[in-house]
Amino acid sequence: MTFKAALEAASGRVQDCLAAELAGYGDDAVIAAMRYAVAGGKGLRGFLVMESARLHDVPAAQSVWAAAAVEAVHAYSLVHDDLPAMDDDDLRRGQPTVHVKWDEATAILAADALQALAFALLARPECAADAGRRIALVASLAEAAGARGMVLGQAQDIAAETAKVPLTLHQITGLQANKTGALIRWSAEAGARLAGADPAPLSAYATSLGLAFQIADDILDVEGDAGTAGKRLRKDAEAGKATFVSLLGLDGAKARAEALVEEAEAALAPYGATAETLRAAARFVIAREK
Amino acid sequence: MTFKAALEAASGRVQDCLAAELAGYGDDAVIAAMRYAVAGGKGLRGFLVMESARLHDVPAAQSVWAAAAVEAVHAYSLVHDDLPAMDDDDLRRGQPTVHVKWDEATAILAADALQALAFALLARPECAADAGRRIALVASLAEAAGARGMVLGQAQDIAAETAKVPLTLHQITGLQANKTGALIRWSAEAGARLAGADPAPLSAYATSLGLAFQIADDILDVEGDAGTAGKRLRKDAEAGKATFVSLLGLDGAKARAEALVEEAEAALAPYGATAETLRAAARFVIAREK
Repeated sequence: MTFKAALEAASGRVQDCLAAELAGYGDDAVIAAMRYAVAGGKGLRGFLVMESARLHDVPAAQSVWAAAAVEAVHAYSLVHDDLPAMDDDDLRRGQPTVHVKWDEATAILAADALQALAFALLARPECAADAGRRIALVASLAEAAGARGMVLGQAQDIAAETAKVPLTLHQITGLQANKTGALIRWSAEAGARLAGADPAPLSAYATSLGLAFQIADDILDVEGDAGTAGKRLRKDAEAGKATFVSLLGLDGAKARAEALVEEAEAALAPYGATAETLRAAARFVIAREK
Repeated sequence: MTFKAALEAASGRVQDCLAAELAGYGDDAVIAAMRYAVAGGKGLRGFLVMESARLHDVPAAQSVWAAAAVEAVHAYSLVHDDLPAMDDDDLRRGQPTVHVKWDEATAILAADALQALAFALLARPECAADAGRRIALVASLAEAAGARGMVLGQAQDIAAETAKVPLTLHQITGLQANKTGALIRWSAEAGARLAGADPAPLSAYATSLGLAFQIADDILDVEGDAGTAGKRLRKDAEAGKATFVSLLGLDGAKARAEALVEEAEAALAPYGATAETLRAAARFVIAREK
């Protein structure tokens, strides 16, 4: 299966899982906002879960629960990031953001409930028959999403913006390892965790992938087209924020991203040819549509 | 041990657990805000966990993890509820609310991280040696805190306020069963869950207790003193919101709360005299300081 087909298949399964889950909830606005927030998006994190699970012979009917969990966390983080008090974005995936379509209170609460939902999904027996493996997923997702992972990265990003002192390359690398890296790493490691296997090779792969992803995002922010990207671009440059492009130059950033993709591909050596789709995923993140 | 001594002992242990946990985090503002948000408060939910655990011979060194988890969820919900887009409160427990002391972005993020922390605490081996019991706590807390529990209740409360149509007694009872009841019920049931026992008697106790607690809150809102309560009072009456007092009258509300406390006490019959502290807790909630 090509990478694009695998990404679409994984994303479709994750969307179905989340839709089926939320069908068991009511019709309140906060539930409608949850459904809206998890729809769309490329589903890269869910794909990483399902593809790393496939490498460990974990069936899709099982890995889709962990994939849906990480997409729920990702969706919650975007809803909160888009709030006026945070990044103040009106557009996400080409659609009005949740607080624009509903209101701020609904956006805050819908995202809060999506975080709870993520842990509910990991706790399902369908996620893994062995409770110890489910608990390992819960513990690691709580760590990746929390104040030593994603939330810390977001807070560091806002602090840097407020301080108006551009970050160094070392600082921005650390920030991104938290902000986007932690969840990408959790996703790629999940397949090994579901199988009770050593997540080290997938962890190394995801660490390089996550950084390449963020550098590519900064490149896209400079070179991209808002219509294709489905969100406002060139915000960072306008705000005078340090980015990988401002620190390394456009060519330097591209060279760094390419080197990271090679590192990511090399980390998958223990999996041989079966990991080709994950290698293609790494190449994809630096070749996204402008 | 008297109820007050048991409450203080449980609260002290929970505070120590959370402080020790957060000592392993950094010095960023978002972490400082998390420490601030979990400090203070009566710790009723944590007490219910530890006391119900004691009834099942689960040691305090074990139950404190689940107690700390529910207090982290409770603290996160207060931080988000206090935001300008929600209840817009400047004062909580007699201190400036998190978004006043820091800013809205820090408040949103610190609370998000507290929710993640709650699940991290439940996933600890110290919480229960058996992974299946830890997963049962994760699943039930995610349900109680999410869009069929606490978050739904908060959303219903805001929707009622926006609609300016006063709720019926049936509606307000359902709303409160979600908004405050779900977490109180989880707390009381946790002791049985930690022991792998049937949570039904504790569940019945907590259902009556939770509703009595909310009715008492409405009474306190009318009769109370802002200095003693540590928060702004008479907001509901000013907003023209339906409360148990507006629907039942002050005497009717007091009578209903007293009947509920009797029901809560009666539900503990299977535990005999060992449940005396939980009975005292039920009496306490309707006799809080004005």
